[in-house]
Amino acid sequence: MPYYVGRVVDDVEQLIARTPAVFREKQGIDVRTHHEVMEIDLSQRRVLVQNVRDGEAWREPFDHLLIATGSTPILPDVPGAHARGIYGLSTLESGIRLRQTLDRDGPRQAVIVGGGYIGLETAEALISRGLTVSLVEKEPQVMNTLDPDMGALVCDELRRAGVHLYLEESLEGFEVGDGRARAVITDKRSLPADLVILGMGVRPNSALAADAAISTGEKGAIQVNDRMQTEVQGVWAAGDCVQSYHLVSRRPFYVALGTVANKQGRVAGVNLGGGYATFPGVVGTAITKICALEAARTGLQEREIRGLGLEYVIARIETTTRSGYYPGAGRITVKILAEKGSGRLLGGQIVGCEGSAKRIDVLATALHAGFTVEEMINLDLSYAPPFSPAWDPVLIAARRAAGLV
Amino acid sequence: MPYYVGRVVDDVEQLIARTPAVFREKQGIDVRTHHEVMEIDLSQRRVLVQNVRDGEAWREPFDHLLIATGSTPILPDVPGAHARGIYGLSTLESGIRLRQTLDRDGPRQAVIVGGGYIGLETAEALISRGLTVSLVEKEPQVMNTLDPDMGALVCDELRRAGVHLYLEESLEGFEVGDGRARAVITDKRSLPADLVILGMGVRPNSALAADAAISTGEKGAIQVNDRMQTEVQGVWAAGDCVQSYHLVSRRPFYVALGTVANKQGRVAGVNLGGGYATFPGVVGTAITKICALEAARTGLQEREIRGLGLEYVIARIETTTRSGYYPGAGRITVKILAEKGSGRLLGGQIVGCEGSAKRIDVLATALHAGFTVEEMINLDLSYAPPFSPAWDPVLIAARRAAGLV
Repeated sequence: MPYYVGRVVDDVEQLIARTPAVFREKQGIDVRTHHEVMEIDLSQRRVLVQNVRDGEAWREPFDHLLIATGSTPILPDVPGAHARGIYGLSTLESGIRLRQTLDRDGPRQAVIVGGGYIGLETAEALISRGLTVSLVEKEPQVMNTLDPDMGALVCDELRRAGVHLYLEESLEGFEVGDGRARAVITDKRSLPADLVILGMGVRPNSALAADAAISTGEKGAIQVNDRMQTEVQGVWAAGDCVQSYHLVSRRPFYVALGTVANKQGRVAGVNLGGGYATFPGVVGTAITKICALEAARTGLQEREIRGLGLEYVIARIETTTRSGYYPGAGRITVKILAEKGSGRLLGGQIVGCEGSAKRIDVLATALHAGFTVEEMINLDLSYAPPFSPAWDPVLIAARRAAGLV
Repeated sequence: MPYYVGRVVDDVEQLIARTPAVFREKQGIDVRTHHEVMEIDLSQRRVLVQNVRDGEAWREPFDHLLIATGSTPILPDVPGAHARGIYGLSTLESGIRLRQTLDRDGPRQAVIVGGGYIGLETAEALISRGLTVSLVEKEPQVMNTLDPDMGALVCDELRRAGVHLYLEESLEGFEVGDGRARAVITDKRSLPADLVILGMGVRPNSALAADAAISTGEKGAIQVNDRMQTEVQGVWAAGDCVQSYHLVSRRPFYVALGTVANKQGRVAGVNLGGGYATFPGVVGTAITKICALEAARTGLQEREIRGLGLEYVIARIETTTRSGYYPGAGRITVKILAEKGSGRLLGGQIVGCEGSAKRIDVLATALHAGFTVEEMINLDLSYAPPFSPAWDPVLIAARRAAGLV
């Protein structure tokens, strides 16, 4: 959505992975859009369905049921939250509406509430469209899934791009005039706004499952086993509405990301179709591009490690994305966290210029493998001057960490 | 060197990682350039050294000795091989000489013999300098460390860039006039040349060690243990002159690449200094950029797998480097080879546009971990539209391979 809003992508059709018609014609799947399931009746194994256009409702039986209800942007419980001019950014429709507003009304001042992925990517989009952009975040940093020192690098880039950052400020409400939001009120100031974007995270749409007494866990997400089955035989769930397992913390974990949802969907589908597949869990990988900067993270960050009562060492290194003499070589900062004593890799964060962030995948793979930082030093990663220094930045960080364990 | 020759890098000083002066002043290491060790005397634990400038020679005692003699480009045993105008490309001096020739003599036609990394990178450099470039390769493809189908993609790119490819042609000699090479003679034709580049691989400089009866192995490279010690206590070796161990084939393996040499050097240094470190081996990773194309490989290729008597499945997929709708998304081809039955990942190859090849590092890390392709499907790799499709190309290939095992 941020790319459509920012005119990076113009054709909204391109954003639709598969239309209902393709589901019907190529896969023989009877997709019914504009139909809402109101209730799951587990004893009778049927669902109550309502056609949201004409209000007609009926009960539909099932042998297997997949709950893939996704998530919804969090709407803050503050005065004025339902005024016009306040946008979440989740569904295709929400993106289309926002872009229409930009094209039609030409708003000049935007305030974004929340400095997560959606907030940051939308900030970039609106800056590129010439708006004055302010961003309000209650924490002392944006991109709270990074440690403060790495998050500070992202803050620097946002300021460089012209975003006005208001950190450690809490949303208290919206000033409304003629039913429209006119300003964002924080605990410290009032920020005039022609347009407000909410990027305060999402919550799983699990009420339907919970109402049927299907167990939920982290943040209310639906509990599933490794095959994506709920505790009820033949009732499956996948995507933003389910709870995941974190392979590094070894604890339940809630994550709402497209690539995780995709993988879970595949596993649920294989099992539902009589096959066998498992989704063992995630390691907490995420990536984003903010203007000229790339940022990525995987595993546990310092706050999470402390929360688990573990001790750790920190290695943070700065080097170049390519051989220093090769054109286009730019700065990359890699931070690695490893368990004290054992040296087990616990997490990693990367912030830097073009060519930096996708290297997080090596750390993610190493987390899946349960590698120690000592084991990582000699990983046979690829080197040629256009791609990397002779020691890949990730290995330089691992080497440093191994020396501290 | 190819980047210096191609004027991608202009300052030759930038290519020197550390000067003798820095070694002396910062590390307190007495570096003597222009001195050659002529003989190792293991019984007396001393070496015969000669100052190559004044011819003075003497014996120097040692407690520990590190042999880091590197490798030398292979010079073919054919008529005319010693004529002027024929260049290898290995040392800094060889690069400086070649660039001087280009700047001064303005040669117009270059013939490159050998389609390995050096040959290809030099082809790109010379094309960029406006020369007519022909490349002779005895195999049916360039970049022989790729399987033929993947190598064909590299051949296509070379032709697109204007390189005249002569595949399945063997070098028979050089036509020489006035002491200069005037043409390259193959078994099929004569190619006029103002300039000849040899890219026929390298051989380890192991004669010094072999003369002292230190054991050598693959391609004559010096045998070392995991600590980079030769069979002689206190005599160490590292870099292009030593034999490595291939962690996938579980066989000795010879590789001459800077990043491997660097890692081995660190391990030898730690041990020589009284510490403890090991270099368990390589998985055969390599990467290169040829004009607009990137190519990388890791693990075993089909030929190597067959040579080990193993059976395997092949998954080759084509997708985009970024989300299909995101600007700059380009083609990437990923090939994965997995052991039949077990599903153990055996190797991978990637060819594609900018943003493709560094993904090989995920496969390299997975090889170190001994993952099966089934285990790889759910790797929590990073996704955002500017970086990847929702399923990373590597995972799409793993998924395909897992279905074939």
